[in-house]
Amino acid sequence: MSKKNAFYAQSGGVTAVINASACGVIEAARVNQDKIGNVYAGLNGILGALREELIDVGQERAEDIAALRYTPSGAFGSCRYKLKSLEENRAEYARLIAVFKAHNIGYFFYNGGGDSADTCLKVSQLSETMGYPIQAIHIPKTVDNDLPLTDNCPGFGSVAKYVAVSTQEAAMDVASMCATSTKVFILEVMGRHAGWIAAAGALAQEQEGDAPHIILFPEVPFDRERFLAKVQATVDEKGYCVIVASEGVQNKDGTFLADAGTTDAFGHKQLGGVAPTLATMIKSTLGLKYHWALADYLQRAARHIASATDVEQAYAVGRAAVQMAVAGKNAIMPAIIRAEGSEYSWSVGEVPLSQVANVEKFMPGEYISEDGFGITQKGRDYLLPLIQGEDYPPYKNGIPRYARLKKHLVEKKLAADFKA
Amino acid sequence: MSKKNAFYAQSGGVTAVINASACGVIEAARVNQDKIGNVYAGLNGILGALREELIDVGQERAEDIAALRYTPSGAFGSCRYKLKSLEENRAEYARLIAVFKAHNIGYFFYNGGGDSADTCLKVSQLSETMGYPIQAIHIPKTVDNDLPLTDNCPGFGSVAKYVAVSTQEAAMDVASMCATSTKVFILEVMGRHAGWIAAAGALAQEQEGDAPHIILFPEVPFDRERFLAKVQATVDEKGYCVIVASEGVQNKDGTFLADAGTTDAFGHKQLGGVAPTLATMIKSTLGLKYHWALADYLQRAARHIASATDVEQAYAVGRAAVQMAVAGKNAIMPAIIRAEGSEYSWSVGEVPLSQVANVEKFMPGEYISEDGFGITQKGRDYLLPLIQGEDYPPYKNGIPRYARLKKHLVEKKLAADFKA
Repeated sequence: MSKKNAFYAQSGGVTAVINASACGVIEAARVNQDKIGNVYAGLNGILGALREELIDVGQERAEDIAALRYTPSGAFGSCRYKLKSLEENRAEYARLIAVFKAHNIGYFFYNGGGDSADTCLKVSQLSETMGYPIQAIHIPKTVDNDLPLTDNCPGFGSVAKYVAVSTQEAAMDVASMCATSTKVFILEVMGRHAGWIAAAGALAQEQEGDAPHIILFPEVPFDRERFLAKVQATVDEKGYCVIVASEGVQNKDGTFLADAGTTDAFGHKQLGGVAPTLATMIKSTLGLKYHWALADYLQRAARHIASATDVEQAYAVGRAAVQMAVAGKNAIMPAIIRAEGSEYSWSVGEVPLSQVANVEKFMPGEYISEDGFGITQKGRDYLLPLIQGEDYPPYKNGIPRYARLKKHLVEKKLAADFKA
Repeated sequence: MSKKNAFYAQSGGVTAVINASACGVIEAARVNQDKIGNVYAGLNGILGALREELIDVGQERAEDIAALRYTPSGAFGSCRYKLKSLEENRAEYARLIAVFKAHNIGYFFYNGGGDSADTCLKVSQLSETMGYPIQAIHIPKTVDNDLPLTDNCPGFGSVAKYVAVSTQEAAMDVASMCATSTKVFILEVMGRHAGWIAAAGALAQEQEGDAPHIILFPEVPFDRERFLAKVQATVDEKGYCVIVASEGVQNKDGTFLADAGTTDAFGHKQLGGVAPTLATMIKSTLGLKYHWALADYLQRAARHIASATDVEQAYAVGRAAVQMAVAGKNAIMPAIIRAEGSEYSWSVGEVPLSQVANVEKFMPGEYISEDGFGITQKGRDYLLPLIQGEDYPPYKNGIPRYARLKKHLVEKKLAADFKA
């Protein structure tokens, strides 16, 4: 069998460590040059394959590839582009396989969340029926930590660390000013359907009673009266109250709190912010002075405060994907397996894509405290290892020196007749 | 002359490095025990003096005092409490001096911005006329960088670094996703009247054309048409546009673009919401997908990404304040003096408080680029040295291990008949 090339693509929302997975893939491919020829990366993810815009990774300098380990965002470009079902658009899958065939690509590494796991599985299946078999390996990535069968998702640990540290620091700020100024601080974090990121706010607590005093999860229906009572009680007791709120907090009827059709604290039409919604509620009913922050992309891009554990795991699943591919595996995903025991340790296992695709993992109920405003010891035991260790990027001129790739495209071999 | 005690208080909005100044004061006082007796700190700033709530700093462990160097927020508590004018409330000043007298306090170190410089000066003046002379030294602190006569204000460099790094990271995120997703990202930063903090966003630029593509300063009247044209042109050219907007952006008529309609204890307008205002404008006129972040307290509390230069300067002005006090100085402020020459170097000088109090320093016009959307090389030359160097706190359990003080209060000596 002639040596096959590899194709790597980044999918969906990027993270602080998805490039560490890319680094793992590329460096492992170099080690396995007897089996893997060139590594191509999709310019802007799977669109790069559909449009035959393939970045020739071999033309990047080795030090730039090494620097991917500490570079946030998607260095090759990512995209939000979900392939339709086979029934709806078989042509798209056929195009992918045609491009792979034209460039002698036999390995497909797709680095993303649930949607990309599904695409990865379909490519593997369809390629066989089309007579050009592709080994498709999915590499887990999501800040939302919502993939099944892996103990956690690379990308999540670093967001969790960012949220924990930011909550800790902002809470100290509020605590030192509350005698005469702000009494309530709200940090809005990502997580539309699962409260993993909000839960990480609890890791700011070093001692009983520390901030955050209230966490709002999408999993716990929002109860306005109980919430406001808890805010007031916390301010009465401690002088201030710190809240970490998931963007996905929902009312009892299942509608998003932020879609309540109200105006925000500044009189603008609702703009999708849970924090300003809560702030307005608190101001108008309790009369307390508030501040709020919305971290948005800062949280998932914050490589400067990445979790060393997360970086290591992201690199490891990238490397493992290549090792599994050269061992002949197909339609699988390397997963983080947590060992039993009180000391945290992990290894990389493998899970079949058929069990990953389109399955969303929610936070177990037993991780949420009885009052619904915090996490349990079990939740803490799960989360705490994921934010351990610092892994600072190098700096130049006061800011991180992140990789800048050349992104040379491979010459096209197919007619430019496909629109994507 | 019998040995006098010292009183230290933190004033106004806290910063990532105000405790480094406290550390400088306390450690220098220990070195000068022949002249300075006990160090007392005001619980919640000047309120602690008015209420005779004095923290006995001598009861804190030396390692906790040392840890103040890397601990954000106001470790002794700060407050927004501006003393009225002498004419309006002479009793308040008389009370301060009575408390100082009761506790044999001869040195007053007040760590804050313009308002506290004014208070400091008045205490010095009044104490003389009241026959209990106090040496009052003001220690500069403000994230807004708006104090005169000092080259920069401790606290600003760390916010500047946070804003530069956050802008860099978020911009990379947007760049990697813009093919199919967000085209415009807006980061709203602090700065009511001066655009120093927004200007720091420009330090994310490593090369010509890098993000941020637009900076909105309070100093440049907002021109909706020019702004929207620049956004569209940037998206057309680069595929995305990153904006750093000061909370104090003003319309041509001098009103704030986002006026929350509330005021703080100092009578300053409480702002916030420029980012959603701009986002709505962009969406409704250009139809571009946007994201925005509001860093709020995260930016000024972010000790985890503090500027080493800033930390060193904050410590140095605290230490210098004590050295000036024991040298018999009064009614002055240690200031950062930048040496001439292309290599950045600085020293601590002293300036009279009469020239500091109630003077606000704006960003020089020559620091803002001709189109009003960026900074000039002169501006960059000024700002860049201030964010140099990293000064990481120690970590435990994945988050910084910041100081927690005991805050033992000294026994009161005066009747509790003063209300503040």
